[in-house]
Amino acid sequence: MKIALAQLNYHIGNFEGNLRKMLDAVARAKAGGADLICFAELATCGYPPRDFLEFEDFIRLADETVHRLAEAAEGIVIIAGSPTKNPVPEGKDLYNSAYVLADKKIAAIRHKALLPNYDVFDEYRYFEPATEFESVEILGKRIALTVCEDIWNIGNENPLYTTCPMDHLIQEQPDFMINISASPFNYNNPVSRTHVVRSNVNRYGVPMFYVNHCGAQTELIFDGGSMVMCANGQLFDRLPYFEEDLRIYELDEVMTASRQTDDASPSKMELIHDALVLGLRDYFGKLGFRKAVIGLSGGIDSALTAALTVTALGSENVRGVLMPSQFSSDHSVADAVQLSENLGIHHEIVPIAPVYDSFETALAPAFEGLPFNIAEENIQARIRGTLLMGFSNKFGEILLNTSNKSEMAVGYGTLYGDMCGGLSVIGDLYKTEVYELARWINREREIIPENTLTKAPSAELRPDQKDADSLPDYAILDAILFQYIENRKSPGAIIQMGFEENLVRRVLRLVNTNEFKRYQTAPVLRVSTKAFGMGRRMPIVGKYLS
Amino acid sequence: MKIALAQLNYHIGNFEGNLRKMLDAVARAKAGGADLICFAELATCGYPPRDFLEFEDFIRLADETVHRLAEAAEGIVIIAGSPTKNPVPEGKDLYNSAYVLADKKIAAIRHKALLPNYDVFDEYRYFEPATEFESVEILGKRIALTVCEDIWNIGNENPLYTTCPMDHLIQEQPDFMINISASPFNYNNPVSRTHVVRSNVNRYGVPMFYVNHCGAQTELIFDGGSMVMCANGQLFDRLPYFEEDLRIYELDEVMTASRQTDDASPSKMELIHDALVLGLRDYFGKLGFRKAVIGLSGGIDSALTAALTVTALGSENVRGVLMPSQFSSDHSVADAVQLSENLGIHHEIVPIAPVYDSFETALAPAFEGLPFNIAEENIQARIRGTLLMGFSNKFGEILLNTSNKSEMAVGYGTLYGDMCGGLSVIGDLYKTEVYELARWINREREIIPENTLTKAPSAELRPDQKDADSLPDYAILDAILFQYIENRKSPGAIIQMGFEENLVRRVLRLVNTNEFKRYQTAPVLRVSTKAFGMGRRMPIVGKYLS
Repeated sequence: MKIALAQLNYHIGNFEGNLRKMLDAVARAKAGGADLICFAELATCGYPPRDFLEFEDFIRLADETVHRLAEAAEGIVIIAGSPTKNPVPEGKDLYNSAYVLADKKIAAIRHKALLPNYDVFDEYRYFEPATEFESVEILGKRIALTVCEDIWNIGNENPLYTTCPMDHLIQEQPDFMINISASPFNYNNPVSRTHVVRSNVNRYGVPMFYVNHCGAQTELIFDGGSMVMCANGQLFDRLPYFEEDLRIYELDEVMTASRQTDDASPSKMELIHDALVLGLRDYFGKLGFRKAVIGLSGGIDSALTAALTVTALGSENVRGVLMPSQFSSDHSVADAVQLSENLGIHHEIVPIAPVYDSFETALAPAFEGLPFNIAEENIQARIRGTLLMGFSNKFGEILLNTSNKSEMAVGYGTLYGDMCGGLSVIGDLYKTEVYELARWINREREIIPENTLTKAPSAELRPDQKDADSLPDYAILDAILFQYIENRKSPGAIIQMGFEENLVRRVLRLVNTNEFKRYQTAPVLRVSTKAFGMGRRMPIVGKYLS
Repeated sequence: MKIALAQLNYHIGNFEGNLRKMLDAVARAKAGGADLICFAELATCGYPPRDFLEFEDFIRLADETVHRLAEAAEGIVIIAGSPTKNPVPEGKDLYNSAYVLADKKIAAIRHKALLPNYDVFDEYRYFEPATEFESVEILGKRIALTVCEDIWNIGNENPLYTTCPMDHLIQEQPDFMINISASPFNYNNPVSRTHVVRSNVNRYGVPMFYVNHCGAQTELIFDGGSMVMCANGQLFDRLPYFEEDLRIYELDEVMTASRQTDDASPSKMELIHDALVLGLRDYFGKLGFRKAVIGLSGGIDSALTAALTVTALGSENVRGVLMPSQFSSDHSVADAVQLSENLGIHHEIVPIAPVYDSFETALAPAFEGLPFNIAEENIQARIRGTLLMGFSNKFGEILLNTSNKSEMAVGYGTLYGDMCGGLSVIGDLYKTEVYELARWINREREIIPENTLTKAPSAELRPDQKDADSLPDYAILDAILFQYIENRKSPGAIIQMGFEENLVRRVLRLVNTNEFKRYQTAPVLRVSTKAFGMGRRMPIVGKYLS
């Protein structure tokens, strides 16, 4: 028996496009002699479809796609994820299901039991959990077929669920397991996912075929990394990260563990780099855009954003705009020009002083006698935002946001100014990680100018301003932020780690009182275990630590 | 036995403030001879605490608050909602619970079983549902004590849940029911809520004491309307809408249905008006702000927003800014000045032409030879946004967003321009409802100038521009939007209602392709059953109807 895993880049709601990809994969699998092909969770409609699932018309289109896919199930069995209707009135209206298609018909349907509803996941919003478990028989083999989270409840100290689907299914003595997933990237997930698959294989003593999505849907990046693991826990094969692929396996070879692949994952920085490039490419591609515009300040954030965007879209599709003011240092323009030359991108220089003067004049009657303060600083940032959006609107380019996670956390940025942009590229990287990734990109030759990497960070909105005037050293700031945001530690616990009490309280207060700014910023490409955006939902008028 | 209902305005995470309010209510209830006092769901920490619930430190503070509240449970029994820890490792870590406090101790705890996880609700994200049901005995009475959603699964054709807590509890023959709620406002909810309470009373044949929150938490407005309903279905009493209150009832009088209150709710427009005023007042009050700034265009949206804000904050706390351009008609300034005079607010006039010219000059080299288009239109809107944020930053005023639901739906607005603002006041009102509410406000005297109500709507970003050039008549547009957004109808079903096919397809495409704009706008005060924001979660890169 030959089994194909199809690791594809689906597009939410693009039923025609998704079906075309799947039919093409079925044809290739048949040509390769496969008896069974496995597609991922909710392959018909893409993942996560979010509230589109509440539209009957959307479910009808998913059903239609399944039926059209079934037409191709001739001489091959197809497994694919799609929503199904709950036939009983009680409970949610849908299941998150795995279809088995054979002989041009629906041969079996299995529903997901463990519905993730934390961080970026909202599956209880839409789906009823399965409470009954039954394996499927395909071509004489008994298969434990599960959907994504179903295999994640194994041996955790504090499990989220009160049931474990595989504990039921294993009683039917399946020959092997198939899990169809939509498991999004974070820099820990390649290792965690392998660990989960291995825990299942070790616990149940049968091999597993695991197939994931590959591709980005706005903030969520699916990294692929589908795999086949033998009953003895050795990794038989792993599909590439961040790329579509179709591979065919001889079941006997998997059963006899006749092959072994290295477990090792790429480095954290390589993973993040490739994830962000895919995230950028799919955001543009799936929205039907080709071109980006980026404000280049000469600083590290915009430089890194530009370098990633050039890799994703090509240098011919990236415009850099330099907008120096009277507070810009000489090196700002020089460094940004150097970057543009290194990247081979077109750049323009639009000095903002005359525009700033016009705002000052316009506001002079109202602001008379009041000192220069944050209002004037922000006007400069907002002039830049308005100029950049002018390019965006005039030339059909998407403005990319260049904020990093540290400044988004403490609100060190101007809403409608430097916080503008359709997509936040590095908003899930702390400033220290921004430097780390920039150095990784420079590992072979200088792409990001050395001076950009070594000079002191500055917003340059008033004379001789430095980030260090308002913020602690980034190594300390980022360590505190990580404990609070990723680890959800209390102020007391963070202080106990050795950080200065007043600083900790000030930083956490800044995080909590700046929720209103993050609420209005672009979706953030997610690479960590806790990114700002859909996976972190905080009150704005809250009064905790604020 | 005397029972007090305390309908209070809690503040998320403000444990000290919430406790102070509750202790004050306990003292007043004792003074009034009450034997039992009921506070609402999650009263200790406020509702919805969202991801603060994932912080152990936050739960510790809630526990501490319960224990401090218990100290006051002497000569009176206290019922109050708070999160509790799930003692077993399996399942979510928390329950959403009702505490019974007596003799300075925790006498009983009951957990919520039906966890809403739709629209604005995310309770499965945090809580494990109760699966066991037991009434509580208080001062010799047997009471079926439930939390909010627990009583909503009654007789629905397509119920969301597979269980019904009261069906279990009624078997213990309770004397009456108590439900502690956090039921947010929408203009249908006062009627729905009364219907739900009555359905329970009719079905189980015992009276119900129902206590709700009153107060706004960013977008969610809790309207109060707590009530006591007799076993025969007559409304014994209802607490006011949109106001805190404490009332004490003699149980015998409720049991004998010795009193009846009129069921009638205020009109839709009165409810919406009072909800928005409370939403505004609490947004400012809970964030510690007093003053607002609003851009006044002479149009209906900014006029309505200003009128509501003056009612909420007082005319001395509202600044109107008029920012005419070369495309502004004469009446724009005149109407806005008239509005400011009617409202008694301070206004400034800041013409934008010189600033616009400076942008044109700055961009001339890059835009050379290209015609005036959406880029230049948006620059005007963004100049206004930048000026308004200048006032906001200089004077510590919150900029209020004036977008309506129709334009937010179809993307007829400029991101970082007129879509700026910390809070969207009328973003859940379709344009036709904006007119209706404005007329309601003008019912006794002209507050919003008549000319603002009667002239054709226009963005005035190019010569002689009218909304009607780009959009269908608002009566038609709003009807289509309502069917798609509130009712989630398919294009086919909407066309079948008699709307023109091309128009329907164009409108739905506009809604779906403008998700990126709504993602970056202010939280919207929610008054309908489906508001933009936390209750409507759509993909940005989706390809459905787009």
